[in-house]
Amino acid sequence: MPGFDDSDFGVNTPLQGTKSRDVNQAPSNNLNVGSPTLAIPSEDENGTVNSIEVPATRSSISDASHFMHNLSLSPSMKDRRGSRNSFGTSLPIPRSKRQSRLSSVHYPEGQPVRPGMPPIQASRDILASQMQDLSGEKVRAAKDMAFVFDIDGVLVHGDRLIPEGQRVLEILNGDNELGIKIPHIFLTNGSGKPEEARVAQLSKILKNPISTEQFIQSHTPMRALADYYKTVLVVGGEGYKCREVAEQYGFQDIVVPNDIIASDPTIAPYRVFTEEERASSRPRDFTKTNIEAIMVFSDSRDYATDMQIIMDLLRSENGRLGTMAKDPVSQRIPIYFSQGDMLCPTEHPFPRMSQGAFRIGLEAMYKSLTGEDLERVVYGKPELATYKYADEVISSWMETIHNDEKLPKNIYMIGDNPASDIIGGNMYGWNTCLVRTGVFQGGDNDEENPASFGVFVNVLEAVKTAIKKELGVDFKFNFNEAINPVTHGNGVSAIE
Amino acid sequence: MPGFDDSDFGVNTPLQGTKSRDVNQAPSNNLNVGSPTLAIPSEDENGTVNSIEVPATRSSISDASHFMHNLSLSPSMKDRRGSRNSFGTSLPIPRSKRQSRLSSVHYPEGQPVRPGMPPIQASRDILASQMQDLSGEKVRAAKDMAFVFDIDGVLVHGDRLIPEGQRVLEILNGDNELGIKIPHIFLTNGSGKPEEARVAQLSKILKNPISTEQFIQSHTPMRALADYYKTVLVVGGEGYKCREVAEQYGFQDIVVPNDIIASDPTIAPYRVFTEEERASSRPRDFTKTNIEAIMVFSDSRDYATDMQIIMDLLRSENGRLGTMAKDPVSQRIPIYFSQGDMLCPTEHPFPRMSQGAFRIGLEAMYKSLTGEDLERVVYGKPELATYKYADEVISSWMETIHNDEKLPKNIYMIGDNPASDIIGGNMYGWNTCLVRTGVFQGGDNDEENPASFGVFVNVLEAVKTAIKKELGVDFKFNFNEAINPVTHGNGVSAIE
Repeated sequence: MPGFDDSDFGVNTPLQGTKSRDVNQAPSNNLNVGSPTLAIPSEDENGTVNSIEVPATRSSISDASHFMHNLSLSPSMKDRRGSRNSFGTSLPIPRSKRQSRLSSVHYPEGQPVRPGMPPIQASRDILASQMQDLSGEKVRAAKDMAFVFDIDGVLVHGDRLIPEGQRVLEILNGDNELGIKIPHIFLTNGSGKPEEARVAQLSKILKNPISTEQFIQSHTPMRALADYYKTVLVVGGEGYKCREVAEQYGFQDIVVPNDIIASDPTIAPYRVFTEEERASSRPRDFTKTNIEAIMVFSDSRDYATDMQIIMDLLRSENGRLGTMAKDPVSQRIPIYFSQGDMLCPTEHPFPRMSQGAFRIGLEAMYKSLTGEDLERVVYGKPELATYKYADEVISSWMETIHNDEKLPKNIYMIGDNPASDIIGGNMYGWNTCLVRTGVFQGGDNDEENPASFGVFVNVLEAVKTAIKKELGVDFKFNFNEAINPVTHGNGVSAIE
Repeated sequence: MPGFDDSDFGVNTPLQGTKSRDVNQAPSNNLNVGSPTLAIPSEDENGTVNSIEVPATRSSISDASHFMHNLSLSPSMKDRRGSRNSFGTSLPIPRSKRQSRLSSVHYPEGQPVRPGMPPIQASRDILASQMQDLSGEKVRAAKDMAFVFDIDGVLVHGDRLIPEGQRVLEILNGDNELGIKIPHIFLTNGSGKPEEARVAQLSKILKNPISTEQFIQSHTPMRALADYYKTVLVVGGEGYKCREVAEQYGFQDIVVPNDIIASDPTIAPYRVFTEEERASSRPRDFTKTNIEAIMVFSDSRDYATDMQIIMDLLRSENGRLGTMAKDPVSQRIPIYFSQGDMLCPTEHPFPRMSQGAFRIGLEAMYKSLTGEDLERVVYGKPELATYKYADEVISSWMETIHNDEKLPKNIYMIGDNPASDIIGGNMYGWNTCLVRTGVFQGGDNDEENPASFGVFVNVLEAVKTAIKKELGVDFKFNFNEAINPVTHGNGVSAIE
């Protein structure tokens, strides 16, 4: 195996401490190797660039195997540095357009209430805006910070509320001395369900309104790929749920493995194919269709079949089943994975193998069958693509709440898992806060991946500390209706 | 990845052209690393050594991925040379005891006939022995050669006879000028059925008696491991067929994945477990059992479940489910694979992924989860273990037919697949013959792996050419009852 330089990875910039927005300038020698024919609309009619390119990397089993353990289970910045298994793509990460298709705010009880506020008071908004008029600097600071929350182990445990989580959302939704909304989004490696369903559930548990515009799960960034590919193979998940997700993302022609098996059962000799599966599938002659990309949305339920079908497509001529590419690289269709976790916790005492393990197995098989490294895109924490997408979501959320589409300067990632939340945030130049309500059970800080902003007993402590740093130690975490914004004294308000 | 010398592989000797019996002297630094506690009875009560050690190799994904493609699909001696994915084991390959448990000659039509001979003639044996008395040198030569046949593409196509195949067996069973049996065995990478069943089927097609003692399929060498392990996990194959095979091999306590799932369904979260499967499985509390070894007998039907269960066992403390080893290497139980083919032909236009692909995927996952290379044994062509076992079978077959347990000097491997039959035979120092009735459709010889004894239109030409070389160009391929062995003239025999 040849050695390689940092510059091969296209991940050196964030590692050198600069914001990885600069990664766009990283070496692009590998760009598009995986999909030379993929048309990337670089500008839309308004002449605004609507795709972001991240330098290509290739999975090399040799390198990957050397680092994946650290990378996926207990990554350290040092190991991460050399890893080619992470960060980047030879394919575009499209900018997130305003997600009008899905955008909708979910209220915990169905009907609108002001989160964390007593029932509607006509005067409240007026008071808040007066307060804000009088504290321009604090307001600017409040609009120049944002929170990114991991969900499980931070705000909830499964379906169980972590009380501090509810309080945090109340504060960020306006229960603070300025009555101002402080921007925040949710970033999870979850998958397999439409965003609306997850957001509705989360909103109910946290008793606060949450918009799908604030919410990123592992495959959310893949929504934007609907502009690039017409016919895609969607792999993983329960039944046909991921087909639904892909439909909501706007993919026009969605193929799932069952459709292919129903068309030609010999493709997966060992697959037991039930009558219901046959009835619910959509067979057609796939030797007449080019599948343009492979998207693994969630955990495969049948490795043997999915690996075989993916391999057949990767080795085919431009995604045409029944063909074998003359050149395994130039004729190969792109493959995307929604996240890279090796293991995921379940009710079993030991965590079970997850999408990352599936991908690594597939990469090794591919390498051994073709002699080539499989070039692929991995989304989800701690992959670069997802953080770049998060920037897009944060600034478009800024427009939603403050009518000001810009990226706040000071971003705080709050998570419980050093191996994904913290390492990813650190590498992307965010302030990272590690909480003790989830995976992390260590000492002062994680040794492999210390949280840059520190370790906190819970999410409320983390958020309060961050806000005090940005808005002043005396900042109050409630909105007092009784204060006269003009006199700042108590008593009858001047405007009554 | 560090570089490594040939001496690391323990496969250099055959490559340097000497018989790889010498491999026993190859570096043994890795010996037993995979199973430090495994007791290897080195001598039986008669003081005869009954196990053969082959130097350890480790699968390194890095190296493996670099070579596996060539190795498994179009191996060349050169590439093979560097491969750590092949040849050897840190575990003993026990000598094949006479396979009394299974030994039985199968006659095509059920009742004994002299293969290739007219119906019983009292005088025939006498004549033959007289002939043999008078041609001591030829007889010695005939007892000093042996044939090893690949089956599919050489003697048969699936269930269809290749006529020359039947004729060859008649010649080797005694229809030759000496009326002598020329030793021959059958060597296939098939799996998943008991030897008796396969031999009965083959014997019927070839219209010649075949003994299970002459027959090696991919998992046959694993029979002898029954002496070393009491409780084993057997993976792969259809239904519970491989459990049957393992029972016939004499394994005392055979666990299959279904037994484990039935005991704790959470181990394989995505496995759909039917009522029949539950009913036919043998659940128990596996946290109270040490599984001593993992044996992949045949293709896995459910990669996801089998890979997860194998991984749990490999990472456990000495094969105790519900534990996690402190040291992934010293506490790891050994794992055996019956063969290493990446692909196997099926009715699908392109060959489907096979046990080799499964293993490579598993190795990569293991490396990424533990940081360690998975040490394992692979049987089947072209792996060393299987050729060493073949030696044992040939010499014990020599005892059966000539009451002389020795290994003939000149061994001829006849196969249709350069990538397994020929490369393996070449590396083991056998004379290799490539036939044109199967996979090979090339020119004068295979470029990657030229057959050392040449290319022949069919198995009959190969066998005749080999026999003429060993026994003389004038050697006759039929036994003439009318010849008087004493006068060598025609007419009435002296002894009548």
